[in-house]
Amino acid sequence: MCEGKAAIVLSVGTELTEGIIQDTHIRYLSSELTSLGFTVCRGVQIPDRPRQFTEELEKATHEATLVILTGGLGPTTDDLTREIVAQAAGVPLEFHPDVWDSIVERFKGRRISDTNRKQAEAPRGFALIPNPNGTAPGFHGQIGGALVVALPGPPSELRPMFSQSVVPVLAARFGSASARDILWGTALMVPESNLEEALRAARPSGISWGTRVDEDRITFSLRGGTAVEREACFASLAASLGPTRIRVGDARPAQLLSDALLSRGIMLVTAESCTGGLIGKYMTDLAGSSRVYWGGYVSYSNTAKTGMIGVEGRILASSGAVSEEAVTSMAQGALYRSEAGISIAVSGIAGPDGGSADKPVGTVWIAVTLRNGETQARLFVFSGSRDMIRRRTAVAAMLFAEARLVGRDFLDTRTKW
Amino acid sequence: MCEGKAAIVLSVGTELTEGIIQDTHIRYLSSELTSLGFTVCRGVQIPDRPRQFTEELEKATHEATLVILTGGLGPTTDDLTREIVAQAAGVPLEFHPDVWDSIVERFKGRRISDTNRKQAEAPRGFALIPNPNGTAPGFHGQIGGALVVALPGPPSELRPMFSQSVVPVLAARFGSASARDILWGTALMVPESNLEEALRAARPSGISWGTRVDEDRITFSLRGGTAVEREACFASLAASLGPTRIRVGDARPAQLLSDALLSRGIMLVTAESCTGGLIGKYMTDLAGSSRVYWGGYVSYSNTAKTGMIGVEGRILASSGAVSEEAVTSMAQGALYRSEAGISIAVSGIAGPDGGSADKPVGTVWIAVTLRNGETQARLFVFSGSRDMIRRRTAVAAMLFAEARLVGRDFLDTRTKW
Repeated sequence: MCEGKAAIVLSVGTELTEGIIQDTHIRYLSSELTSLGFTVCRGVQIPDRPRQFTEELEKATHEATLVILTGGLGPTTDDLTREIVAQAAGVPLEFHPDVWDSIVERFKGRRISDTNRKQAEAPRGFALIPNPNGTAPGFHGQIGGALVVALPGPPSELRPMFSQSVVPVLAARFGSASARDILWGTALMVPESNLEEALRAARPSGISWGTRVDEDRITFSLRGGTAVEREACFASLAASLGPTRIRVGDARPAQLLSDALLSRGIMLVTAESCTGGLIGKYMTDLAGSSRVYWGGYVSYSNTAKTGMIGVEGRILASSGAVSEEAVTSMAQGALYRSEAGISIAVSGIAGPDGGSADKPVGTVWIAVTLRNGETQARLFVFSGSRDMIRRRTAVAAMLFAEARLVGRDFLDTRTKW
Repeated sequence: MCEGKAAIVLSVGTELTEGIIQDTHIRYLSSELTSLGFTVCRGVQIPDRPRQFTEELEKATHEATLVILTGGLGPTTDDLTREIVAQAAGVPLEFHPDVWDSIVERFKGRRISDTNRKQAEAPRGFALIPNPNGTAPGFHGQIGGALVVALPGPPSELRPMFSQSVVPVLAARFGSASARDILWGTALMVPESNLEEALRAARPSGISWGTRVDEDRITFSLRGGTAVEREACFASLAASLGPTRIRVGDARPAQLLSDALLSRGIMLVTAESCTGGLIGKYMTDLAGSSRVYWGGYVSYSNTAKTGMIGVEGRILASSGAVSEEAVTSMAQGALYRSEAGISIAVSGIAGPDGGSADKPVGTVWIAVTLRNGETQARLFVFSGSRDMIRRRTAVAAMLFAEARLVGRDFLDTRTKW
């Protein structure tokens, strides 16, 4: 059962339900439809089987005001969308000679198979949707109370057809809608359950939220209420979790650090032990990273720490590689060997082995040195798998460096996470 | 309507139906279930809404013999799976003190929120499914004629739980589906469409296949026929694509290189430009990597190439940073400064900007130097996004080094991909 301005997406193809290819239409269309003010109440992948397709289409047209079908418009016998939609609408298929001419034109003298003729057909009374990047047009029309839109499977055909031709049809039919009624934010260095608690405490009635956990951040949306109410909710969240951890919009840690570096004309050098290159990877994921990232030392072994960036054997022997002394020496050694203006160094125990009573798995030292030589080092204790500990270390390190650059106190952030 | 040994996958989360994140569970589970002999007759994404969840679950348990639910096992009020399944099964939720103890243990003294308590609950009579990589266990039990299996949303938790714990349950409940009737393999440095073509050509009748595309490899399964027929099919595939690109079992590039290093008692040093630390990240993803990975230089800027590993300014000025001379100098410079026995160097244009007519985006030089000084360098031209070019570069570099170590000719591999 769907409520309100409800949409259902049906993605058709046995290659989907056998897991041979990854469906991406449901996500694309759900995102577009949500920002147009629709509630997507179901995204369904079904095989190329007539009876099941018919059942799903009938159910969808009863429940939603908009049904989008993707796939099944090719020339093969597996491609059933035209037939199934015509049958559900109780109309015959109609041959469009002008569409056929343009298909023949597209084949430019190559032998064209008779099976292609069906691509020039559409259910009678349905409007055609031009396909500038492929053979088969789409179509849209009414079945019962629902607008049914059929689009071809290749993403390079479907996406421009949707944005250029379907969006205007939806606006005309359902009225305009906007993404302005949503406030987006990002939570950093916050366990999901703590964010949930803070959201519950911050939220005035009438505002709902959604969260999305990504590998380096949690993005969240506040929707409903007035703009003032959404902003008050956000401000209350920021007050409870602190300005390092709650940001406006979609804020990737590497992007935040890059922005802080770029606006100051400073470059970064990294000295990574337990993260093994992950901080460098995050920084260089961003296009144009060569303006802010000088380079890095992956000083994984002890001899690499000494040989690459001059960490004294005495320190490694007395305090160990995971210590304030070692990570301070790494940060300073890397900075002085580089042309960068700031350095990050991390050294920790990512596990699953290597922990001790003193230094359990998850123990991580992070240091940041500025060009004037000022170094700050902090101890963190992260939990989770090897992969999680490494990602948490990288995120904390990038945010620590950003805080140093913008002059924000980093002491309010949690060292356990 | 579903027929035969039918399965339905329900992927739960408003972040899916709002298009905020891409569902990957339906594809993963569809592929696995297909190779276990199930027919997946529907994969459905639904929002976190109790009524709709209940309706979809009831419909699914009437139509299929197996229903797999993903997501909704977190600690938040959005997480409804436990409650909905218990209600549909007509049983109360039961608190498992031992599960709670292990959750508390996992938090290691950090303040644990009361909202986490629900993660220790499961419908009465349902069996728990251990979750080695996360907080919440899954569970399985009968509703009407269907086996219902609930798994948590994070892929790093769901996938090992499925393969380690759910597959044996399915084998016991639905008969054979024995993993012995499947031959698993991995394709490396192969575009998905080429693998499909090769599979189609190699496959005798009676053998079907499934593929799973991962960030560094494509794993595939051959199912049906006799063991001899499956092996003949695999051999034909290996003959057409070559022994570097077709491997037995699930073969991660970093694991292949680590194994080759470990068995020879040799360590690796990396010199990365366009990959920015990604090769080091892949190598150190593996637990115990300190036995084979000495460390690496992320020589991203030109002054880093010169300052860190002695690439002469003359080479950078005359041939450019993306050249055979530069990458050879990087590989040699890194090796001589390290205690490693083999080095990898990569330098390329990951894009989206920085390409030219001579060196378009995707142009990558990779060099490998052995301790005796022998260097081999090769030119690759990769296609795709910045992210894809960087991943393809890292995979090719690790396999190039592995080939040098095991003495396999690397010339049979494709340089465009």
